[in-house]
Amino acid sequence: MSFYNKIAGQKVQRIEALSDGVFAIAMTIMVFDLKDPVSNVVNSDLELLISLKKILPNLLTYLLSFMTLGIFWTGQSTQFNYVSSYNRQLNWLSLFFLLFVTLLPFSTTLLSHHINNATAVLIYWFNILAMGLLLLIHWKSAIKRNCLSFGEDNPKLVAKAISNRILIAQSLYAGAASLCFLNTYASIICIILIQLNYALGILPAGKKNT
Amino acid sequence: MSFYNKIAGQKVQRIEALSDGVFAIAMTIMVFDLKDPVSNVVNSDLELLISLKKILPNLLTYLLSFMTLGIFWTGQSTQFNYVSSYNRQLNWLSLFFLLFVTLLPFSTTLLSHHINNATAVLIYWFNILAMGLLLLIHWKSAIKRNCLSFGEDNPKLVAKAISNRILIAQSLYAGAASLCFLNTYASIICIILIQLNYALGILPAGKKNT
Amino acid sequence: MSFYNKIAGQKVQRIEALSDGVFAIAMTIMVFDLKDPVSNVVNSDLELLISLKKILPNLLTYLLSFMTLGIFWTGQSTQFNYVSSYNRQLNWLSLFFLLFVTLLPFSTTLLSHHINNATAVLIYWFNILAMGLLLLIHWKSAIKRNCLSFGEDNPKLVAKAISNRILIAQSLYAGAASLCFLNTYASIICIILIQLNYALGILPAGKKNT
Amino acid sequence: MSFYNKIAGQKVQRIEALSDGVFAIAMTIMVFDLKDPVSNVVNSDLELLISLKKILPNLLTYLLSFMTLGIFWTGQSTQFNYVSSYNRQLNWLSLFFLLFVTLLPFSTTLLSHHINNATAVLIYWFNILAMGLLLLIHWKSAIKRNCLSFGEDNPKLVAKAISNRILIAQSLYAGAASLCFLNTYASIICIILIQLNYALGILPAGKKNT
Repeated sequence: MSFYNKIAGQKVQRIEALSDGVFAIAMTIMVFDLKDPVSNVVNSDLELLISLKKILPNLLTYLLSFMTLGIFWTGQSTQFNYVSSYNRQLNWLSLFFLLFVTLLPFSTTLLSHHINNATAVLIYWFNILAMGLLLLIHWKSAIKRNCLSFGEDNPKLVAKAISNRILIAQSLYAGAASLCFLNTYASIICIILIQLNYALGILPAGKKNT
Repeated sequence: MSFYNKIAGQKVQRIEALSDGVFAIAMTIMVFDLKDPVSNVVNSDLELLISLKKILPNLLTYLLSFMTLGIFWTGQSTQFNYVSSYNRQLNWLSLFFLLFVTLLPFSTTLLSHHINNATAVLIYWFNILAMGLLLLIHWKSAIKRNCLSFGEDNPKLVAKAISNRILIAQSLYAGAASLCFLNTYASIICIILIQLNYALGILPAGKKNT
Repeated sequence: MSFYNKIAGQKVQRIEALSDGVFAIAMTIMVFDLKDPVSNVVNSDLELLISLKKILPNLLTYLLSFMTLGIFWTGQSTQFNYVSSYNRQLNWLSLFFLLFVTLLPFSTTLLSHHINNATAVLIYWFNILAMGLLLLIHWKSAIKRNCLSFGEDNPKLVAKAISNRILIAQSLYAGAASLCFLNTYASIICIILIQLNYALGILPAGKKNT
Repeated sequence: MSFYNKIAGQKVQRIEALSDGVFAIAMTIMVFDLKDPVSNVVNSDLELLISLKKILPNLLTYLLSFMTLGIFWTGQSTQFNYVSSYNRQLNWLSLFFLLFVTLLPFSTTLLSHHINNATAVLIYWFNILAMGLLLLIHWKSAIKRNCLSFGEDNPKLVAKAISNRILIAQSLYAGAASLCFLNTYASIICIILIQLNYALGILPAGKKNT
């Protein structure tokens, strides 16, 4: 390893700040997909309300993607809770993870335009899969290179809980995505239900410990 | 509760950084609603000035929404002044709060396009209401789960001042919004006056204490 | 003053993070004004180069506005070097300052579209004036309310240096802007020269001290 | 030097936060170049997949620019690892560096629209060159003005490793860019290979040290 590679990408706070920035922007710019459905002046209050029905698929994919980003942001933030040092390998794993975060608004637009099309669902699912895999590799790599510090938490328990959470969630997403060959709406609603479960913490995932 | 749910979303600085990012972007991208009203070359200085009149409704809704975001950002930041620990329930309450922050640019565009339409005012008001409710639940939940630290401030006084501020402001907003059935401009101007009052701190809201 | 108003807006790091976010976004989204001037396929390398001449006014206003934002960001950051505590008055002064930062991309688009029009120059100048005034009031208010801590620097010297810098710069901008009635390009180039002077630190502004 | 110039631009954390913001936004808004290639409803899943071929050049330039930004962000972050104090000269060098970061989305759009045109490749390369040069001047200036603190690392080794990395990388980019006169795709793919080498750390650049 060259000396430069040893000194590059060591600052944990910088990659956290960059990540927060990328997530914040991705979350916010997706709103551009929600366009005023009425191009000319509407005559009555009811008319506007009715024409808003046209953007319901966009609103659905917006909610879907906001929760996707929320879940992956929480997942990454939970990993960084334990990161005590950093190196350029981890740095680039994080950057490639962020690459797929920035691609999500595109996958979302594609999905909202072609919500009946299985290809659009599969591209969206591939985006989720890539984020999950990179987060998992990041975690495994941080463990392997001793870049973590667990404080008072049990290292083995934490290491396994974080890996399992990704593996179980990705299996559920894969199952939901495969429904797209039957019905794309069923597939999307299944993904949203999985996400709501994680967001609201209804069903436990992983071993229970008090 | 699963072990993963215990360790997720604990980093206060991360959710603060994400919030600042989302607010900063929402505040800034609303400027895209202000478009050059003149498509071709204007012949005189006066002509440009006159055609700028066309974007006055957009400028009005821009000011309205910038203040809305300013008020809710200040409100959230004031809560975080006292937050000493965090958990995934609070984390997701903050994320759903941010969801409605990212939706505000859409509600604003809708309002600026249909400024005479009560439906547009009500959607905008619903956006404000959702932000207020989530901020209130976030505060109550943080109190209940002992995630706050009050330093030298009186805990009961702070807890009540923050709750009351939200309740009083939301009541005023609801009153102003209900005016939309009479006249939408009256409704919007009322909301702006309430906001200016809070921004400039003219009338006190809540019990006075020295 | 109500108790809520006493506890609101005290976190200095939050307003700094929000400001950095707003400045970063305003600086970056202005790039949308730089559009590919060629809509169809060009036949030769030279043809592309020649058609890029069409966006020279946009590039000029881009440079102008990037430096405007750089100067005001540096100015605000210099003030915050000395800010040790914060309150809601300062908080709202900062938010109104950021309002005019978010409006700059609009003033820039207007200027690049109507670069021969004095009205466009005056609107741009008014934007600079508003930012300067709010920064000055912010500084005076922070002094008055004892929110500053000067460390090893001479308080009086710092206080005066920061005020004078704003006053001198604004006088120069006002002079340059008034040239717009003769020739708008002369006016814009004058503003850029004043900015380059501040950016490169060629001519000293304010009393010399070693 | 005037007293104001002595006190301006000293806060290292602010320029780091601004940089993270600008990089995060530039990385994310490039996604707007990826547009849904299908304007109307597609009839089959295969049809959507086939029409996505149309955005392959955009996807290629997107990957190229994301890695460009990732490399320069890592490079700047590595320098800031050693920055212990700051001044307005360094502040403005950083701001001009960020100017070219904000211009990259424009160079990228230009390249994706005219991917067969040598002029577009040269403009893109000039953007990379400007970022590299400003990063090098920033580093040399920080050394000269004693703004660095090396901790336990060997100052001479670090200083040389960072300078050499920029010089070697820029030589490789210049070589790859010069291929554009033969074939623009060859040129772009060469740049991507150089970047992948740096991202994945395959070939060492600079002296090896253990």
